[in-house]
Amino acid sequence: MAPQSPIRKLVAFSDAAKERGIDVYHLNIGQPDFEMPEPIQKELQNQVKRKSLPYAASPGLAKTRQAWATYYQAVNINLTPEQVIITTGGTEAIMLALWTVLDEGDSLIAFEPGYANYAGYAIQTGLKLIPIAAQEKKGFHLPPAEQIIRKIDRKTKAIIVTNPNNPTGTVLTPAEIDLIIEIAKKYDLFIIADETYRGLVFDGRKNPSFYTQAKAKKAEKRVIIVDSLSKRLNVCGARLGALASANQEVISAANKLAQNRLCVATLEQEIVTSMLANCLSYVEKIKNQYQKRRDLLYHLLDQEPTIKLTKPEGAFYTLPTLPVEGEKFSKWLLTDFNENGETVMVAPGSGFYFTPNKGKNQIRVAYVLEEIKLARAVELLVKGLRVYQAKKS
Amino acid sequence: MAPQSPIRKLVAFSDAAKERGIDVYHLNIGQPDFEMPEPIQKELQNQVKRKSLPYAASPGLAKTRQAWATYYQAVNINLTPEQVIITTGGTEAIMLALWTVLDEGDSLIAFEPGYANYAGYAIQTGLKLIPIAAQEKKGFHLPPAEQIIRKIDRKTKAIIVTNPNNPTGTVLTPAEIDLIIEIAKKYDLFIIADETYRGLVFDGRKNPSFYTQAKAKKAEKRVIIVDSLSKRLNVCGARLGALASANQEVISAANKLAQNRLCVATLEQEIVTSMLANCLSYVEKIKNQYQKRRDLLYHLLDQEPTIKLTKPEGAFYTLPTLPVEGEKFSKWLLTDFNENGETVMVAPGSGFYFTPNKGKNQIRVAYVLEEIKLARAVELLVKGLRVYQAKKS
Repeated sequence: MAPQSPIRKLVAFSDAAKERGIDVYHLNIGQPDFEMPEPIQKELQNQVKRKSLPYAASPGLAKTRQAWATYYQAVNINLTPEQVIITTGGTEAIMLALWTVLDEGDSLIAFEPGYANYAGYAIQTGLKLIPIAAQEKKGFHLPPAEQIIRKIDRKTKAIIVTNPNNPTGTVLTPAEIDLIIEIAKKYDLFIIADETYRGLVFDGRKNPSFYTQAKAKKAEKRVIIVDSLSKRLNVCGARLGALASANQEVISAANKLAQNRLCVATLEQEIVTSMLANCLSYVEKIKNQYQKRRDLLYHLLDQEPTIKLTKPEGAFYTLPTLPVEGEKFSKWLLTDFNENGETVMVAPGSGFYFTPNKGKNQIRVAYVLEEIKLARAVELLVKGLRVYQAKKS
Repeated sequence: MAPQSPIRKLVAFSDAAKERGIDVYHLNIGQPDFEMPEPIQKELQNQVKRKSLPYAASPGLAKTRQAWATYYQAVNINLTPEQVIITTGGTEAIMLALWTVLDEGDSLIAFEPGYANYAGYAIQTGLKLIPIAAQEKKGFHLPPAEQIIRKIDRKTKAIIVTNPNNPTGTVLTPAEIDLIIEIAKKYDLFIIADETYRGLVFDGRKNPSFYTQAKAKKAEKRVIIVDSLSKRLNVCGARLGALASANQEVISAANKLAQNRLCVATLEQEIVTSMLANCLSYVEKIKNQYQKRRDLLYHLLDQEPTIKLTKPEGAFYTLPTLPVEGEKFSKWLLTDFNENGETVMVAPGSGFYFTPNKGKNQIRVAYVLEEIKLARAVELLVKGLRVYQAKKS
């Protein structure tokens, strides 16, 4: 049975806190406070006279696939609309990728800390997940090649990489991406490139796709992009993602699976399409806002001598290490702490490790609130930590 | 790898026919021509000022779960909102049910002809699907108990039943439902009750839920309802379904899986909720229209001496037997036939059998068009069949 989502397992406690009248600042879930882009709001207005909601084509509306390919061209991912399959969120894209390129009993490499739900997806598809530790002391960047290669055996068929990373905010360098591609070539692996946070990178970093770099090495058929609009276009509740690949066999197999589940919700495809085709300036704008939030968060947390963290390079997460157990403290913030009727919710860090007993002193903080609220939320976190430590000692 | 959907595998040929300027009457796909109910249209209009699309709670919006439970109470299914999990279409409800109550390598009984995609879902979840033939000569009703029991072994953990049935339109009698429940009790099986077409039954038939009859036998914890609003509320493209059970372990496990995929699209939950809570008179109204269509279709096809069919008892499908191969003929209708620029599309019947080489002479006809169009579509089918037979002989 899949482990419970670390992001949602404390929801009952936050609900209870709210029932007691406590205001809860949510830094636990990757749901930014931004409105959806105006073009999406307008397209929704255009849909309100709609009298029917028919099935869409299984791989997605033709115009939505076209828009996704147009966006990809703009970020140097040269794929055609036929090479893009629209999915119900990034989750379904990952499931389709796993079903398509691995058989039951095969193994899948994932770096840890990593996206918590990969563990559940592996169980659901009958795969063995092989965790490889990122280098915490080097900002959660990749370990040396030999540490990766050591874990590969004849059952290993794919490697899944989240870039930019959730929960660490680490952005792989072009050299690191090349390293993964070289390993995939040498050991005949697929690369499942989870690029949900593509474009959200700070301090002038580049953020090339695995696809683009693999193409330069004629290895693009090994790459399956799994993608999502949730974060890039602030439509978390639209459940729109995509699987994209230049590998015709992968696309054919994924298309069959897509037929089995009929289609993705029609209305959401309709409302995002025009924005998706032309979204780079919007992504740039929110990226700049996240960078400001990152700066604020890092400034506030780095002052605390008991909190250890690396400066996030992208996405909107960080995984600081505390002097206390992350899960107990996260729960305590909801059950026993408030200041002036306010508290803060974070996600226990241990849930982002696939190896038991790792990350016990960590929490994941999502900086998804505007700066004034973020500052208060971090203040509550720091004050809560002091009270918690004082009680314990 | 999953077999290709029989409903969608000929889509490339219908697309090509349309490009040649041919009008295609679609009797291949279960997508009725009804508008969505007015209350859903109105709720969509109420969404026009929406500026964000946040995640919903993983098991569904509280009010949508409440509405589903309210509907269930009205049809004598006594379940609470906490016992209902909203899913992305009936497909996801089935997948959650399979993941929850079976382990890899377990076997699942399904009657054939049956819903084509069950075969794919079994492959995707690592299960063995054990087909048991319905009695074609008795209107595709259940075989005698001993034929079912003979297929059960220690690996058999569940039986999936579609009632009313797709593709045959058969509605199980209360005695047949009781038979399945007794077998499930005796052999310790779960019943996955796919009741997507609940309420769409003709000629004054009753349509009790498996849940309701199991409860009378104190066996309700063996039942998992998998449900969908696609057909009952004519919102195929909304992708809204549900898993419902009085079994707390099933609900807890399904909730964990639901957390892994985050949530179901928020907008669709918002727009269907008020209608769902109060939909019985609407379902009654469309049921009457389907009954009229059924009468027309049966009248027209039954006149043809070369076509054999049973009178459908519910849903909006029938599975007639032709004097020719169903798949070749279905394809030929799209590639080589038209009358005055019109042709008709049906689904090959063999795709609705889990055993190879069965149903080769059958087609599935979905009577999802208004009567005047349905009459023309059936005329095209019959004329096409005569031309096809004349060419062959």
